[in-house]
Amino acid sequence: MPEFRQDPVNGRWVIIASERGRRPTDFEAAPHKARGGFCPFCPGHESYTPKELYAIRSDGDATWRLRVIPNKFPVLEIEGDLGRAGEGIYDRMNGLGAHEVIVETPGHDTTLGALEVPAIEDVLRAYHVRYTDLKRDGRLRYVLLFKNEGEAAGASIDHPHSQLIAMPIVPRRAKEELAGAKRHFDYKERCIFCDILRQELAEGVRVVLENEAFVALSPYASRFPFETWIVPKVHQSSFEALSGGGFRALARMLKNVLVRLARALDEPPYNYMIHTAPLQEEPIPYYHWHMEVIPKLTKVAGFEWGSGFYVNPTPPEEATQFLREARVDQEY
Amino acid sequence: MPEFRQDPVNGRWVIIASERGRRPTDFEAAPHKARGGFCPFCPGHESYTPKELYAIRSDGDATWRLRVIPNKFPVLEIEGDLGRAGEGIYDRMNGLGAHEVIVETPGHDTTLGALEVPAIEDVLRAYHVRYTDLKRDGRLRYVLLFKNEGEAAGASIDHPHSQLIAMPIVPRRAKEELAGAKRHFDYKERCIFCDILRQELAEGVRVVLENEAFVALSPYASRFPFETWIVPKVHQSSFEALSGGGFRALARMLKNVLVRLARALDEPPYNYMIHTAPLQEEPIPYYHWHMEVIPKLTKVAGFEWGSGFYVNPTPPEEATQFLREARVDQEY
Repeated sequence: MPEFRQDPVNGRWVIIASERGRRPTDFEAAPHKARGGFCPFCPGHESYTPKELYAIRSDGDATWRLRVIPNKFPVLEIEGDLGRAGEGIYDRMNGLGAHEVIVETPGHDTTLGALEVPAIEDVLRAYHVRYTDLKRDGRLRYVLLFKNEGEAAGASIDHPHSQLIAMPIVPRRAKEELAGAKRHFDYKERCIFCDILRQELAEGVRVVLENEAFVALSPYASRFPFETWIVPKVHQSSFEALSGGGFRALARMLKNVLVRLARALDEPPYNYMIHTAPLQEEPIPYYHWHMEVIPKLTKVAGFEWGSGFYVNPTPPEEATQFLREARVDQEY
Repeated sequence: MPEFRQDPVNGRWVIIASERGRRPTDFEAAPHKARGGFCPFCPGHESYTPKELYAIRSDGDATWRLRVIPNKFPVLEIEGDLGRAGEGIYDRMNGLGAHEVIVETPGHDTTLGALEVPAIEDVLRAYHVRYTDLKRDGRLRYVLLFKNEGEAAGASIDHPHSQLIAMPIVPRRAKEELAGAKRHFDYKERCIFCDILRQELAEGVRVVLENEAFVALSPYASRFPFETWIVPKVHQSSFEALSGGGFRALARMLKNVLVRLARALDEPPYNYMIHTAPLQEEPIPYYHWHMEVIPKLTKVAGFEWGSGFYVNPTPPEEATQFLREARVDQEY
């Protein structure tokens, strides 16, 4: 079973997932599923994946339009208990949790950004269904929804998919954001993300676009070139609060941002993550969920990883300008 | 001039270095200096680099064995003042600091790990000379010494070199380590790194090797496969405290670790960083400087960057075993 281990100096939890390939030669090989090779996510290959957790099918159609399955090589496993224990000065617990794959479309040779808006809306609704289902498991504290697009961004299978990791701890980045946002709220009695939106919408220089419910912006202290955040205009602490027309509005915004990034940067590899409040919490006044989209353009990553010290060669104001000017066929 | 900007939510400072290439097309091109192309770091090409800051030459020999120069495309600049200012809810300051390159050897087609121990000792001594020189600048708070080896680890020039960035703030990772170490000290009145060494040397399962002054170990909560730390056996809070035979002992340990990584993992790209106490501080009882060596083996990085949530497929106990068994021609 995989294992959580805590760094005794800075408190960060790491998953040691020994089932996933580990010998030195496994890294040398590092096979990448070529287009044209056998794809376990394609229609007709359902028997090669673990049992389906959720799917969207059109009425009377036997084929799925979207499918959620457990990850065949999970970094966390859903059975068992935490087994928290010390090992001298160290702390560990069992790798309890869930690791799921959202297969976004039956089409192998496409990308999320190329899908029609209703199909992207399906993806967001599937995130929401799985989120609310996993929330019922009282052992879980956080659901991380993310996507790796392109080999350089960590995707090992080309077929368009996103991932979900549900875990019994709140990850470090989320904790830091929550703490920083709370500090601001304790002092000002305002949500810092709401403050950011107010200032950005007033100044305009870092706003890529907005629609009725969302704003896409280049953050003031962007760590990466063309880093883009999608933030709901109304205050909501959790992705769970998304409902009704919000799904369509977010799908339109996400489509628009992905198309602009694809045009401006020639289909870059990218990652996105949904930053949201921990599970098992009431709506909180100081945190504001959002999506962070990060094109993977630079290779100067190893050092930044290790030091937490980022150098960004593209001022966010210029990135905003390039993204605004990127040609889109329509405003979705 | 480059600029520091602070993320208003989590307090992280980022350098926005617009002089370094920034238009979308600059990322598409991303040229890598091929072996055989013109190299500004090779002997005879000194006029292509900024003015030398330090060099090691053998007596009576006109050619240098090692050379330190300012980075031609610095992420920070040494002239001026901080100019701290607010921009609404945001905070910024001028990109004051130093960015230097340590050219480790005149030889272009070699690697640091392939140099003889005395040449590696020269590199460590050059780090120390520049560290203590920059410490005299009262505006600076931290010196980050690091190396990117191989294109995948962020090196843009093949000729063996390390880098130094001196800055007017303490970077986030260092702050977190200092805070965590202080928490342990406040409670236990012991240095946590000394505690780690005691437990690791007693258990043995994560100790790769030791010599008279240093221990190389796979940390209990390794974020990356084959992550290896080199820790001084005696308590020292700053790299500045390294002296006398310590340079030779560290050079031997670093050589041994780099050769083992090269053999076990087939010359992997890697990063290393020296983690040390901030400048302008007296020796502190709770912090312990060390080197962190991180082979760049996995591509699943983008997501980890963004979330701060690491999945490591190689248990450190197994990495230790592979590195111990790696063939070295001698124990350096």
